Amino acid sequence: MGHNKEYKDLIDQEKDILPAVSIDCVIFGFHENQLKVLLVKFGNTDIYSLSGGFVLNEESLDEAATRILNHRTGISNTYLEQFYVFGDPKRVDPEIHRTVMKKNGVDLPPTHFLFKRFISVGYYALVDFTQINPTSSIAQEESGWFDIYELPANIAFDHLHIIQKALESLRLLLDHKLAVFNLMPETFTMGELQSLYETILNKKLLRANFQRKMLSLGILERLEKKWGGGAHKAPYLYRFDQSKAIPAHKPDYWE
Amino acid sequence: MGHNKEYKDLIDQEKDILPAVSIDCVIFGFHENQLKVLLVKFGNTDIYSLSGGFVLNEESLDEAATRILNHRTGISNTYLEQFYVFGDPKRVDPEIHRTVMKKNGVDLPPTHFLFKRFISVGYYALVDFTQINPTSSIAQEESGWFDIYELPANIAFDHLHIIQKALESLRLLLDHKLAVFNLMPETFTMGELQSLYETILNKKLLRANFQRKMLSLGILERLEKKWGGGAHKAPYLYRFDQSKAIPAHKPDYWE
Repeated sequence: MGHNKEYKDLIDQEKDILPAVSIDCVIFGFHENQLKVLLVKFGNTDIYSLSGGFVLNEESLDEAATRILNHRTGISNTYLEQFYVFGDPKRVDPEIHRTVMKKNGVDLPPTHFLFKRFISVGYYALVDFTQINPTSSIAQEESGWFDIYELPANIAFDHLHIIQKALESLRLLLDHKLAVFNLMPETFTMGELQSLYETILNKKLLRANFQRKMLSLGILERLEKKWGGGAHKAPYLYRFDQSKAIPAHKPDYWE
Repeated sequence: MGHNKEYKDLIDQEKDILPAVSIDCVIFGFHENQLKVLLVKFGNTDIYSLSGGFVLNEESLDEAATRILNHRTGISNTYLEQFYVFGDPKRVDPEIHRTVMKKNGVDLPPTHFLFKRFISVGYYALVDFTQINPTSSIAQEESGWFDIYELPANIAFDHLHIIQKALESLRLLLDHKLAVFNLMPETFTMGELQSLYETILNKKLLRANFQRKMLSLGILERLEKKWGGGAHKAPYLYRFDQSKAIPAHKPDYWE
């Protein structure tokens, strides 16, 4: 079996990268009551992982995350945000690296840098999965969307834990991330927004309470009524008031 | 000038630590309307920094943060939480390391690992500063509390930025961190809690709104009235209902 050039390049880059640091991207996809996550299937295996990679010597972490996501999934122009660093000394099973490389014609010496300890910086994003059709730059790899409640069994390393932590962060900060991740269309109804919340939180919410809480955040602007059947039934349309959303997200520290 | 043994030990540990990764601890201190932060003054200089250090090969990040905080300030048994990773390639000015070491009798070669790139994992905590009297294990160092709005001018590296980001995170998540950081006494009045919020957010809050919002979080348990002057003026006492605080902080992911 010949070398897979893309995998060979990946494991030949030790001198160009920051040692001990990797990045993993958790891309959540939402559309009409479905919440998915983007996974990559390693070439010639049934092993899935997040879109991950290393940090080049001259890159910031944010730049690396953007480059890695693009390389492994073809996605560009998506806002990524750091949410946690994973640093358990035993978080990565080196056997998985060995298996993946072997299946792609690359035999790694035991001293290879892939077997050293890495901490991984987790980045996440929330996108509309119908707008994004992922493709890996690595020929043998496939990437695709998986329902968050029906993930494949064979997820490598600590990546299931990373997905769980990302979902926990997203749920905890959903009020603040709504405008940041720019997920809703330009205008939307309160019902559409409630559907997003219910899908991400995985529970039904009371309509009146939800509306009261959302309006109290002060980030929604109410527009004209949506055209519909009977006038009394037409729902209001809303949009995010970015001027109010941003100060809530980034407070003035020293005021 | 002879070597300062503690600094010498610090810079001789390259083989024992994870390369490229450091940790910085932002310890906020609160007491009666004052918000402070704990800084360390490097030996024989007027340069201040956060309590920082490196990660030993076999340590988790959380373990390293606890050990480092103890080494540089004497603090133990304080719950630290990771809040952000700082990864700008130019975040550290190597001249500062050179100066500090020189002032302590250690001459560093240009190839020394201290001059390589490090990303830094930020940890934070919120404590009562009257309960903690910090002392560094490094003989020439001093550590002490500084009012957050009157910090010394000469703070090293990107540590002012790290403090700002920590304060931003604390403000954003204050509702969730109240019980986690276990800052309030066992029982407290709504006025005492409001004072904590006002000090951390650095603004006055409307009493009625604040009370309504706090009660809506569902994490406070109302106890008997505090003994005071006229019965109609005595405020209620509250305490955190930990059983409710924890699920809100750590949601069930896959329910």
